[in-house]
Amino acid sequence: MVKVGIVGGTGYTGVELLRLLARHPHCDVVAITSRAEAGKPVSALFPSLRGHFDLSFETPDNADLTQCDLVFFATPNGIAMTQVPALLAAGVRVIDLAADFRIEDRAIWEQWYGMEHACPELLGEAVYGLPETNRQAVKQARLVANPGCYPTAVGLGLLPLVERGLVELDSLIADTKSGVSGAGRSANVAQLMGEVGESFKAYAIPGHRHQPEICQTLSRAAGVSVGLTFVPHLLPMIRGIEATLYARLKHPEAPDLQALYEDRYADEPFVDVMPAGSHPETRSVRGANHCRIAVHRPMDGDVIVISSVIDNLVKGAAGQAVQNMNLMFGLVETAGLEQVAMSP
Amino acid sequence: MVKVGIVGGTGYTGVELLRLLARHPHCDVVAITSRAEAGKPVSALFPSLRGHFDLSFETPDNADLTQCDLVFFATPNGIAMTQVPALLAAGVRVIDLAADFRIEDRAIWEQWYGMEHACPELLGEAVYGLPETNRQAVKQARLVANPGCYPTAVGLGLLPLVERGLVELDSLIADTKSGVSGAGRSANVAQLMGEVGESFKAYAIPGHRHQPEICQTLSRAAGVSVGLTFVPHLLPMIRGIEATLYARLKHPEAPDLQALYEDRYADEPFVDVMPAGSHPETRSVRGANHCRIAVHRPMDGDVIVISSVIDNLVKGAAGQAVQNMNLMFGLVETAGLEQVAMSP
Amino acid sequence: MVKVGIVGGTGYTGVELLRLLARHPHCDVVAITSRAEAGKPVSALFPSLRGHFDLSFETPDNADLTQCDLVFFATPNGIAMTQVPALLAAGVRVIDLAADFRIEDRAIWEQWYGMEHACPELLGEAVYGLPETNRQAVKQARLVANPGCYPTAVGLGLLPLVERGLVELDSLIADTKSGVSGAGRSANVAQLMGEVGESFKAYAIPGHRHQPEICQTLSRAAGVSVGLTFVPHLLPMIRGIEATLYARLKHPEAPDLQALYEDRYADEPFVDVMPAGSHPETRSVRGANHCRIAVHRPMDGDVIVISSVIDNLVKGAAGQAVQNMNLMFGLVETAGLEQVAMSP
Amino acid sequence: MVKVGIVGGTGYTGVELLRLLARHPHCDVVAITSRAEAGKPVSALFPSLRGHFDLSFETPDNADLTQCDLVFFATPNGIAMTQVPALLAAGVRVIDLAADFRIEDRAIWEQWYGMEHACPELLGEAVYGLPETNRQAVKQARLVANPGCYPTAVGLGLLPLVERGLVELDSLIADTKSGVSGAGRSANVAQLMGEVGESFKAYAIPGHRHQPEICQTLSRAAGVSVGLTFVPHLLPMIRGIEATLYARLKHPEAPDLQALYEDRYADEPFVDVMPAGSHPETRSVRGANHCRIAVHRPMDGDVIVISSVIDNLVKGAAGQAVQNMNLMFGLVETAGLEQVAMSP
Repeated sequence: MVKVGIVGGTGYTGVELLRLLARHPHCDVVAITSRAEAGKPVSALFPSLRGHFDLSFETPDNADLTQCDLVFFATPNGIAMTQVPALLAAGVRVIDLAADFRIEDRAIWEQWYGMEHACPELLGEAVYGLPETNRQAVKQARLVANPGCYPTAVGLGLLPLVERGLVELDSLIADTKSGVSGAGRSANVAQLMGEVGESFKAYAIPGHRHQPEICQTLSRAAGVSVGLTFVPHLLPMIRGIEATLYARLKHPEAPDLQALYEDRYADEPFVDVMPAGSHPETRSVRGANHCRIAVHRPMDGDVIVISSVIDNLVKGAAGQAVQNMNLMFGLVETAGLEQVAMSP
Repeated sequence: MVKVGIVGGTGYTGVELLRLLARHPHCDVVAITSRAEAGKPVSALFPSLRGHFDLSFETPDNADLTQCDLVFFATPNGIAMTQVPALLAAGVRVIDLAADFRIEDRAIWEQWYGMEHACPELLGEAVYGLPETNRQAVKQARLVANPGCYPTAVGLGLLPLVERGLVELDSLIADTKSGVSGAGRSANVAQLMGEVGESFKAYAIPGHRHQPEICQTLSRAAGVSVGLTFVPHLLPMIRGIEATLYARLKHPEAPDLQALYEDRYADEPFVDVMPAGSHPETRSVRGANHCRIAVHRPMDGDVIVISSVIDNLVKGAAGQAVQNMNLMFGLVETAGLEQVAMSP
Repeated sequence: MVKVGIVGGTGYTGVELLRLLARHPHCDVVAITSRAEAGKPVSALFPSLRGHFDLSFETPDNADLTQCDLVFFATPNGIAMTQVPALLAAGVRVIDLAADFRIEDRAIWEQWYGMEHACPELLGEAVYGLPETNRQAVKQARLVANPGCYPTAVGLGLLPLVERGLVELDSLIADTKSGVSGAGRSANVAQLMGEVGESFKAYAIPGHRHQPEICQTLSRAAGVSVGLTFVPHLLPMIRGIEATLYARLKHPEAPDLQALYEDRYADEPFVDVMPAGSHPETRSVRGANHCRIAVHRPMDGDVIVISSVIDNLVKGAAGQAVQNMNLMFGLVETAGLEQVAMSP
Repeated sequence: MVKVGIVGGTGYTGVELLRLLARHPHCDVVAITSRAEAGKPVSALFPSLRGHFDLSFETPDNADLTQCDLVFFATPNGIAMTQVPALLAAGVRVIDLAADFRIEDRAIWEQWYGMEHACPELLGEAVYGLPETNRQAVKQARLVANPGCYPTAVGLGLLPLVERGLVELDSLIADTKSGVSGAGRSANVAQLMGEVGESFKAYAIPGHRHQPEICQTLSRAAGVSVGLTFVPHLLPMIRGIEATLYARLKHPEAPDLQALYEDRYADEPFVDVMPAGSHPETRSVRGANHCRIAVHRPMDGDVIVISSVIDNLVKGAAGQAVQNMNLMFGLVETAGLEQVAMSP
């Protein structure tokens, strides 16, 4: 059994990680920390977990995380980087669900995240945990940077085209929409149901932190730098991301795109290329670790349109983290991730 | 492995049954019928099931349900009663998720359901599948009438008081609220999101079919006939029932109600009496087979207030049906029902 | 034109008051205060008001509210009582949308609101602004206590029965449900969409501040003290309250209740008794100042069931305040309140 | 007073038209038809209208629409074209809220709408009722084709760029999202709340009828044919459209786009160019006839991003129809359309 610790388990990625780990056959959660909720049973904060955990939150000072085989950070950005070096030194492996290790280029990271990086020497070692691009590296990693939610949906949607160099790489467009759980569980007027219910808007059009992260993924796949216009939107619902992606074919005589996508993901347990003509719904992946993708070429023109959906808390966060854990510890990659999506 | 057939699997209880059975360790779904969708793979109708089932819908005529050990009816009311006798004669056991066998008194059934009963001779044999009242009978049953959603939430909420005769039995009140999935998946203007989204209303105040069903359960428990005012409401959300129940104490010096409830359900795997002072949320049972209950005595007065929540599609339908199947076939009662509620 | 000031206009009742006053033919909003937003145009905080107001928020210190004919307090509880005496002394009339003057009995107020009252000498003068019970007094009032949202829906629903003494007054039950805007617009994890979306729960079962307010209204109407069990619930939607009310007839031979209700409210411009057999929907009053009520006697038993709906921000707050203003200043009672409900 | 008739007033555009006309100072609704609801008072079908209309639905055969000055068609596509010639011949003017007269090119219309056009001779006369492009023609029109909802949001968003020829016209992209009321009020499993609540998806990626309509508007403005990729999505909410529009600048040294938009719409009463850096929310126009637009140039690149929001039932349907009526009858353009958006 993998002994697991969780730092900062009071947010939505934290409770989702607990939901998934509760039924995982090969791991035990032995510690969970929260300054604010120290002493409180996790099932008192999250009644959905009643009967599944006897664990209580501990202060970070009391929790002996060095007893763990693996520590997940489900903290705000900027926390993991202050604690990871000591854990690695103690032989503990780490998966950071926040953004501290996602961007390899320190200057870009510091520009977008507005703080100095506390351990830039680890940026090179950290493995970007998108198994569909990086499975072997994840298996060996001491430190995995779990991808952002939008970057997962957009990356998986565009990779087959970008890897093959079929589309113009300087003018990619990602129009993305997320449920409100992506904004986290902290007191904030802007996230009240009275503010975001029954309404819809774009946000961060001038620039969003996930743009450089996506560009890093796509540029690595392309071998050259890509240009991406990225616009996120906020949906009046809780879970789910849909990304509609636009890319221009370089040549009108393109290969069969349906076959291209199906081949690319044929061996991927968590990427489902839907039949030609499909329109994936976010509910088709609610609570599941799958990304479902449809690829279209409207009116046989030169603009390819891809629709890609994930559950932002599962494949976009906690589920992908468990997938990475499975890889790191030599477990079956799908262990603990066999949930069927809950629909309706 | 139990060989399972499903009649009428295109509604919300059907897809939920498939979701639960997909991961059940001891059963195989070998046939599923639908006239309207015959020939279509279940995963084409319900993309959430992609990768979990290879099954296609068959016409009722083609499906050989007599090969099954158990057939679930997830049909509209009035269908099961026409097919059950032949199945029982062929040695197949049956769980009806509709209402055909829920009311033992034929006259009452015919009055509320507005049709003649096709096999009244089975009304006496059919076992009402609320395991918390009826576990031994369910184990032996050939034919189980799976309870309605409201009756499950209301019944479990009131049973401890009623069984002990602590409250006035002629003036019980159940103010209940259900998500829209309870109204089913058929074309109906009244259930459009444009009609029921962002709005709330009571319905069926003059009378609702679940009222006699609840009275039957409570009267059996009390040993005398009970009087119940039952008012259902429609919530602008998909899953979940909350029942707020009002009962008047016969004597001001009542026993410790928290202890009474905890004792009554101490051995029940799917009934969770929450700590004193709690207010159960429907999301705490979303996708799970649990009923969570809190009991209050506001201002130490003589009115007891109970709040009881279930997922109408799980403990209120498909989950309870699986629980009954487990009992009927000698399986572990919780097999296939270990899901953690999905919250948020 | 009535010169109007608003103290604390950054919450949901504040913006709703602005929405209604924007089109009011006989008043001008001349000042609005907010410490937090001082200097900001109201249309910058609330883009829905763009084009309707040139006004900016001022600090309370800078705003000369004594120039106003009327000041609305749309503040948290406990603010108005510290400022009202000076305004009244300056000849300004006041409508408090918070709770400071709703309860005449100081001890009860202090118990439920957990603070000392700052001007108890005004509790006797303040007029409870439910025009359907108090129209003449409102017209003369210097200080109006605008009723709470639940008390408006429950009070209007029960008054015809209570005034006539037709029901048992010691065992009234009000099962009420409110949209989230009733909880206000302040940073609070419990009101995040991730917490309250797609879920439903009761709250404050042990006791809620609106219980004594409702009892005061009903006791005045009955001439004796009434007993009420009051349970509020939180709906996953933004606007609207539905109250389902249960009362037991004293005598089986009751008068025609439909006629009783229609007669009681025949001259009320904002109370609509729906046809017999109706089930009012909250959307039928969304954005409008109406209360719609249906009265039922299920199965001709002795329990009367009333369903009463309002928009908590309109008849439950800002609209009723405008109605009170109209009465106080001799305007047509419906001025500025002719909006048709927005449905869907 | 303009005497108004409405054909087919039982859908969402119908009830919205009634909501707006109820308070319009210069028109009377004298007749409304519906085969299915003939004889029923409109306020029985739509309780939100109680107290505002005494009108009942009539069968089309009984209604004497030739007494009207103006008839609105709020019917499914294909109805108006069979009745308009007779009405025009009788001297009645017509606004069709459906699509029968939106596309001037008969062949294109017949291809997308899958039927033969019943009066192609009127396609040339019909005026496309987008006042911001066509005000003078609308004033004179006998027959106005009221624009589609998406075409209004997209057209108004792109017109300033397209009219000035600032962007590449062969690769425009419109990623649009609509609330469910856009799909109408007819019995349809796909529009049940259980199907579309708490979920999000693209639809009609291969092609949607609004694409040629938008291209017609933009091509007229540009003077050349434009190329547009148009992808609609379905939002889990009732009202509102947001369109995120992507256009590539022809030259990096573009004019000040904020000023360009503000100038273009300076005299338009219903188009609001928001301050630079804004992100319009659909709720900021809920129930109002406004289109709010923000224009961005992310990271000073060559891709312009516009976000445009309307209420699909108001500026996208009934409100724009009233605006057109006002123009046709020489009324103040904003008459009956002064509602403040309802937010929250």
